[in-house]
Amino acid sequence: MPIPGSKTNTGNTVLRIGLAQINPVVGDLIGNSELIKAEIAKAKDQSVDVIVFPEMVLTGYPVEDLALRPAFRQASQDKVAQLASEIKELGAGEMLAVVGYLDEGAKPLNAVALIHDGKIKARYVKHHLPNYGVFDEFRNFAPGTDSLVVRFRGVDIGIAICEDIWQDLGPVSELAKRTPGLVLVPNGSPYERNKDDARLALVKKRVTQIGAPLVYVNMVGGQDDLVFDGDSLVVNESGDLLSRAPQFQSHLGITDIKVAVNSSNPDLIISDSVNQTPHPNTSVNQIAERIPEAQEIWQALVTGLRDYVLKNGFKSVALGLSGGIDSALVATIAVDALGKDKVFGVSLPSKYSTEHSLTDAKDLANNLGIGYRVIEIEPVVQSFKAATELTGLAEENVQARVRGSLLMGISNQEGHLILATGNKSELAVGYSTLYGDAVGGFAPIKDVFKVDVWNLAKWRNETARKNNQTPPIPESSISKEPSAELRPGQKDSDSLPEYQLLDRLLDLYVDKNGDAAALVAAGFSQDLVDKVIAMVDRAEYKRRQYPPGPKVSAIAFGKDRRLPMTSRWKER
Amino acid sequence: MPIPGSKTNTGNTVLRIGLAQINPVVGDLIGNSELIKAEIAKAKDQSVDVIVFPEMVLTGYPVEDLALRPAFRQASQDKVAQLASEIKELGAGEMLAVVGYLDEGAKPLNAVALIHDGKIKARYVKHHLPNYGVFDEFRNFAPGTDSLVVRFRGVDIGIAICEDIWQDLGPVSELAKRTPGLVLVPNGSPYERNKDDARLALVKKRVTQIGAPLVYVNMVGGQDDLVFDGDSLVVNESGDLLSRAPQFQSHLGITDIKVAVNSSNPDLIISDSVNQTPHPNTSVNQIAERIPEAQEIWQALVTGLRDYVLKNGFKSVALGLSGGIDSALVATIAVDALGKDKVFGVSLPSKYSTEHSLTDAKDLANNLGIGYRVIEIEPVVQSFKAATELTGLAEENVQARVRGSLLMGISNQEGHLILATGNKSELAVGYSTLYGDAVGGFAPIKDVFKVDVWNLAKWRNETARKNNQTPPIPESSISKEPSAELRPGQKDSDSLPEYQLLDRLLDLYVDKNGDAAALVAAGFSQDLVDKVIAMVDRAEYKRRQYPPGPKVSAIAFGKDRRLPMTSRWKER
Repeated sequence: MPIPGSKTNTGNTVLRIGLAQINPVVGDLIGNSELIKAEIAKAKDQSVDVIVFPEMVLTGYPVEDLALRPAFRQASQDKVAQLASEIKELGAGEMLAVVGYLDEGAKPLNAVALIHDGKIKARYVKHHLPNYGVFDEFRNFAPGTDSLVVRFRGVDIGIAICEDIWQDLGPVSELAKRTPGLVLVPNGSPYERNKDDARLALVKKRVTQIGAPLVYVNMVGGQDDLVFDGDSLVVNESGDLLSRAPQFQSHLGITDIKVAVNSSNPDLIISDSVNQTPHPNTSVNQIAERIPEAQEIWQALVTGLRDYVLKNGFKSVALGLSGGIDSALVATIAVDALGKDKVFGVSLPSKYSTEHSLTDAKDLANNLGIGYRVIEIEPVVQSFKAATELTGLAEENVQARVRGSLLMGISNQEGHLILATGNKSELAVGYSTLYGDAVGGFAPIKDVFKVDVWNLAKWRNETARKNNQTPPIPESSISKEPSAELRPGQKDSDSLPEYQLLDRLLDLYVDKNGDAAALVAAGFSQDLVDKVIAMVDRAEYKRRQYPPGPKVSAIAFGKDRRLPMTSRWKER
Repeated sequence: MPIPGSKTNTGNTVLRIGLAQINPVVGDLIGNSELIKAEIAKAKDQSVDVIVFPEMVLTGYPVEDLALRPAFRQASQDKVAQLASEIKELGAGEMLAVVGYLDEGAKPLNAVALIHDGKIKARYVKHHLPNYGVFDEFRNFAPGTDSLVVRFRGVDIGIAICEDIWQDLGPVSELAKRTPGLVLVPNGSPYERNKDDARLALVKKRVTQIGAPLVYVNMVGGQDDLVFDGDSLVVNESGDLLSRAPQFQSHLGITDIKVAVNSSNPDLIISDSVNQTPHPNTSVNQIAERIPEAQEIWQALVTGLRDYVLKNGFKSVALGLSGGIDSALVATIAVDALGKDKVFGVSLPSKYSTEHSLTDAKDLANNLGIGYRVIEIEPVVQSFKAATELTGLAEENVQARVRGSLLMGISNQEGHLILATGNKSELAVGYSTLYGDAVGGFAPIKDVFKVDVWNLAKWRNETARKNNQTPPIPESSISKEPSAELRPGQKDSDSLPEYQLLDRLLDLYVDKNGDAAALVAAGFSQDLVDKVIAMVDRAEYKRRQYPPGPKVSAIAFGKDRRLPMTSRWKER
């Protein structure tokens, strides 16, 4: 309950805010706590008043059903209390630290602690629990009900968490009524392309509604099939962008904000006296430029792969290099993520492999400077054919499975994580062999359509040229007609529409959840629509067994799109 | 809004209720509609007044994200309207039919239509949307807000859907206030062992609270990783069980119930006049005996496999027969589900396979009368070893992967669905080879611990003996020590605790979601607890790529237990 009559002064002051855009690891309470303290130490050196961390930074995010484990909830609560005293021991007890963590009432809670002077002074619980797309928060948490405004250094600070500011009702309208001088918002907001800078637009809208500056802090890093891109930002009460952090990088953004004092009736007064001395000069209020879309997607893919490898303790990755564009792109992403010494390419030619496939694979490996070996699969394929009858599609698939088994053998022998190289177009229509080209622990481009695979390859080569480096991807891998090379003269276009056409159709059906009627209205023939939709629906069972990979689109295959395997629904 | 003053009469009448415990297919609006009409025709012949179908029977259940597709919602609404007129055309327009379907308002709705005289007279929308365990209903539907009581043949009938009666507040207390004469509850309630007859206890409790008889109708059949066991039942207002349908079987249960007339202020009067003539004599109010637990689990596994195969249009299944207990059990389940002519066993011996493994596999195939062939894998394994260095674990795994690739080759060549034979204990600790023994489209015993695999095998043999049939599973497959036979003299117990011990620990950790501390308190050593928990947590990535299989436990691997792969949380 607000303290009656505590609105006793007017005027402005300047608060120095630290936006701690960091990369926690799910479940690593100790490591995340150390990360948090390191940022606080840096912030202290720069005279920061308030430091804001991302949503559930202490536990990592999303914790999924770890929230349902009592020992984990207890450990999170213990750790945040310990952190509070450790911050004071660092000599940073005067700073207000806003730290997301897992708390519990009758059910688990997605909460932030307001830490000051070695203690948790207040707690805010997220109201709006997203339960769509990749999110299951209504499954894992109970919603909060109370708003929170605390007075710190004379400034009445309101809190919201992520989804709270994406909904018009609830916390936003409640905060607007309470006239805070400043609003702080920790976030766990995954990257998704084509968002048209929705975050900045949203923050500006909320600033106008609430009438106070807003500090938006998002995490960076990869967590299974999600990538967080940071993009933390501050907008002042006039709607001007004051600072913005670089995307995909850990970053402590220091921002000085002019804020009103004593503007509300706070729930709690932590300190009443405004800052008396001006903050020392330092590099504050920097606005990182937004990066172009191709680079954004590239960094998302690099980040997703890098963090899956590093957070899971793998030392290296290996993949099959076919000479085609998909494996070339994945190898290049892997080198950008991990460095060339940690990436191993294996060429696995069959009797149907063309000469240029081998040359292109070798050129790629040379360009990237990665380990490279060639294993002829024909003798192994022959041994399968001697063991049992395999013709037609069965023979095609056995080649893919021999390659998969050889890669997994190398993985078991040498310890590499195997990367699957399938793209979203293939995954959509089931153009892959289960336990063949689908093997692997991570699939870096599973959410990238084939046309974007080409676009990214061209962009990456062009970027290399601009930096006077060798373009990594052989031009012929980009320009040649796609083929799985599982039978003589095979082309993807034998069984699939041209990718330019297919991908536009898939984008409407999968990413935009469009009806068959909408696809026909968009100009695709009924026959093509029926054929492609049938392929997509039938391949659901294959996708269920496919490795995880970073979501970069509006609807990625995986927990974003939960369709039954057993279904007779035909959309037409 | 209730019609004021419509409570105009007292006394009792008898309604004849049809409990249509049927097996719909998800997405099959046409087929499900035909099923519904066939039941209505049967019910008409038996002078049924009211026929009640399971939850979302028209669309199948659960539809998951199909609910988010506008064309599917529209098709469901169109189909239920069409069904209403077709029921009248059948001459059954006088019957009240309670049909679950997918409707929509601002969001998709889990609804039932009350159909009479060729029209949808009323609609009820589910209030409580389960969003835990295997359920994602808060993701897919908006909750209903209004209760519904309609007067039919003078009886005021209230409606609730499934989860509505599992929660104390909401529809149950609302219905209690409205004093209906009868309550009808369509359900989509999956089988789970050890429920201790929770449904009957619940229904009795609700009857007492509401003060009216309750009709509980559940579906049967398998849908991906769920199995519905029926168990439809009626309890009268004194709490007596009036009828109960046999589990796992499609069944139209005819039940005569004495009910109060004009007991409420209904929202709608469909017909005011009570039944004048007594119902003809027929076989009504039958109470099927509950089957013993082993048989219950067996039927769940058989149903899950049968429906995955049939609903997805497969003609046959194939699996590797190792001579061990897991593959023997799966083969026997498959024969019970599909008949011996649709099951094909493949023995894939290596140089480490013992003589008895081959004999046991062959004996099993003979006992079952299934197709059987032997393929020696050694030459194929040698071809892999010639292609690349494979020693130790890599060599062990290549044997498993050669087997997997051979099975998939046979699948591609001959069209069988491959069955994976892993049990829950193996899946839990990661004791399986990705793309090796883990290959397959369906995994019938993935939710059955090893000790239960033995118990079920003994039960199945014993049942055969009682029926003077040959026990299918060779005794030595049951009695011998478990071994993967991937190296000389290998035993599961080399790397795992004894299964009797392991399974009790896994039951606490996985099925009961117990903390490490709880496991130690239950008497397991800290070392063992730490070791097993680490194995379970580390194997999450393997389980993600494992085929689906029927849930029979409280928490099955899959959508019941959503844990991150990338996690550093160590529970201790």
